[in-house]
Amino acid sequence: MTSHVMPTAERKVRVDLAERSYDILIGPGLIAAAGKEIASRLKGRKMAVITDENVAPRYLEPLMASLGESGIEAVSLILPAGEKTKSFEHLIPVCEAILGARIERNDAVIALGGGVIGDLTGFAAGIVRRGSRFIQIPTSLLAQVDSSVGGKTGINSAHGKNLIGVFHQPDLVLADTAALDTLSPREFRAGYAEVAKYGLIDKPEFFEWLEKNWQAVFAGGPARIEAIAVSCQAKADVVAADERENGRRALLNLGHTFGHALEAATDYDSKRLVHGEGVAIGMVLAHEFSARMNLASPDDARRVEAHLKTVGLPTRLADIPGALPPADRLMEAIAQDKKVKGGKLTFILTRGIGQSFVADDVPSSEVLSFLTEKHPR
Amino acid sequence: MTSHVMPTAERKVRVDLAERSYDILIGPGLIAAAGKEIASRLKGRKMAVITDENVAPRYLEPLMASLGESGIEAVSLILPAGEKTKSFEHLIPVCEAILGARIERNDAVIALGGGVIGDLTGFAAGIVRRGSRFIQIPTSLLAQVDSSVGGKTGINSAHGKNLIGVFHQPDLVLADTAALDTLSPREFRAGYAEVAKYGLIDKPEFFEWLEKNWQAVFAGGPARIEAIAVSCQAKADVVAADERENGRRALLNLGHTFGHALEAATDYDSKRLVHGEGVAIGMVLAHEFSARMNLASPDDARRVEAHLKTVGLPTRLADIPGALPPADRLMEAIAQDKKVKGGKLTFILTRGIGQSFVADDVPSSEVLSFLTEKHPR
Repeated sequence: MTSHVMPTAERKVRVDLAERSYDILIGPGLIAAAGKEIASRLKGRKMAVITDENVAPRYLEPLMASLGESGIEAVSLILPAGEKTKSFEHLIPVCEAILGARIERNDAVIALGGGVIGDLTGFAAGIVRRGSRFIQIPTSLLAQVDSSVGGKTGINSAHGKNLIGVFHQPDLVLADTAALDTLSPREFRAGYAEVAKYGLIDKPEFFEWLEKNWQAVFAGGPARIEAIAVSCQAKADVVAADERENGRRALLNLGHTFGHALEAATDYDSKRLVHGEGVAIGMVLAHEFSARMNLASPDDARRVEAHLKTVGLPTRLADIPGALPPADRLMEAIAQDKKVKGGKLTFILTRGIGQSFVADDVPSSEVLSFLTEKHPR
Repeated sequence: MTSHVMPTAERKVRVDLAERSYDILIGPGLIAAAGKEIASRLKGRKMAVITDENVAPRYLEPLMASLGESGIEAVSLILPAGEKTKSFEHLIPVCEAILGARIERNDAVIALGGGVIGDLTGFAAGIVRRGSRFIQIPTSLLAQVDSSVGGKTGINSAHGKNLIGVFHQPDLVLADTAALDTLSPREFRAGYAEVAKYGLIDKPEFFEWLEKNWQAVFAGGPARIEAIAVSCQAKADVVAADERENGRRALLNLGHTFGHALEAATDYDSKRLVHGEGVAIGMVLAHEFSARMNLASPDDARRVEAHLKTVGLPTRLADIPGALPPADRLMEAIAQDKKVKGGKLTFILTRGIGQSFVADDVPSSEVLSFLTEKHPR
């Protein structure tokens, strides 16, 4: 897999969706170059930038300066940081701010931040005037390799995560890899869980490459850019094949059904669990459950757990600080998740490393007894 | 135009949108037959019915009984009546109610009511789980001939009407023409403005038929069913040709740019002005403005006004009770409406009865001086 490491710092991935196709640019310094990149692609010269109080102090001013230099007039709105911002409470002022800025058809809304800002802002852009142009400037690893690509937007409901939203593709994604240097180690690791996921879905050689090169990916430089580009390309391929998740796109939910239930069980409290950590535990559970169903070897589950543990991610329910609700309550959260058809459970299971598949008839009794074993009262 | 009047009471119009195609059924008694019609078309057996406090006392029980008889389990939510219900404040509980009812992929959300309920419920269905199935049971004439068909959904913003929403097509529309017998004359007339609009857009012979047969349409029976079917077919044709309003669909906005501005200027207060009344005045203004621009004969504007006045609709700014803001403020409301591209105004103008067209370069100075003439301080 040395061919994965390219000498150039900047990469481009195209998401191929006919008239909704767009580019993902990956490399250091893209926030400072945003004005130029946007002005060369979009006709509009009015933008509304939505960001949060963690990201704003570092990146809002350079972004606004770059837009200004390219003749783009922009307003900005700074929201509180954290998962609880993905709510109607914050969606409403974002929509009103976009309308107040008189963003017209060729103008755009810009999300500057992590997954929360991207999902919320994308949703607002998707519903203002029944769809406005939208640019993602993801500043977390998770957002760069996952949430900023593919057009899934939304907010959380009292009934679960991401249950309210729309499909709304961005017009451009600018992944400034230099922004990742300021992430906390915990946040970087959480994003890394999604990077590893692409290997586990259908790229066993990428997973093997990560096992050998993860330290270089964490350190920054070409290996990090490479890992992000491979991840974006993997996601772009799946999205191009199945934009609306009628089939193959569901593979991207590997680890997410368990993960979402754990996030709900911890009240989306990021002190206890962030999304990528839930996915890490969820991927180990998915491999263990697949082994229990005699679909995969238990060795594969052990290998997945070993790698995620090595990079510092939680891998077991017991790694989550504080008490979890009992197994039957976790099961309820799973049943309310959106991968449900006519009462049957849809799960992403696996036949081994890089051999995941969509199983849409998993008996809930099996899942419950598995969870009860993993998490006895 | 006697060929328009058919002996049968029931009609079917197909909206042709590839995999999103659907039927509009038109005739008396469809609420009581809803369970049968829905069960024969959709696989799901769980529904959430959203309605308002005006419609519920008459039609909710018969609808729920009909669903129950066909083995469909339904919950219902009753909202306050009126335009102010098209707001985030009411969207939120509707979304949570749909999620609480555990509506899954084959199940559906049902809108039972007029345009407000249809627009709000359709928007909620469009965003819950990024798109849920949706059935329209319109109970007002306006909803039967216009808002229930075509997939435009949404709510109002502080910045204007319908500025927040999605395109989300229903799976079925059931237009029970018997429900119109209980409308107030004012509400029936308001819907009639949209019926007349289809004639004015591109069906001069239909407008002429309405001039002769409007009393039979108001009285009920086959002429009314015929007028509704012609209107639905006209809308279905436009929507099939241009679902997302990139071109021809904008013709449906005849009278609406002025109309929306008047609704905003009267704070969406239905005591002063309802949507159809705004459209009636707006259509007369559009014909007068077209005459002023030397595009059409002033005789056409007079003919339009004469007919709308005959049926009892308001046709002039002075017909609106209470004081209106000055012309420049009306102009601001127009500029914030969604038919704006790069600062230029898009208007639906006409060359005569049934000869409307999209003009996307109307100078705002011309509109302002026209409005100032019509509405001097």
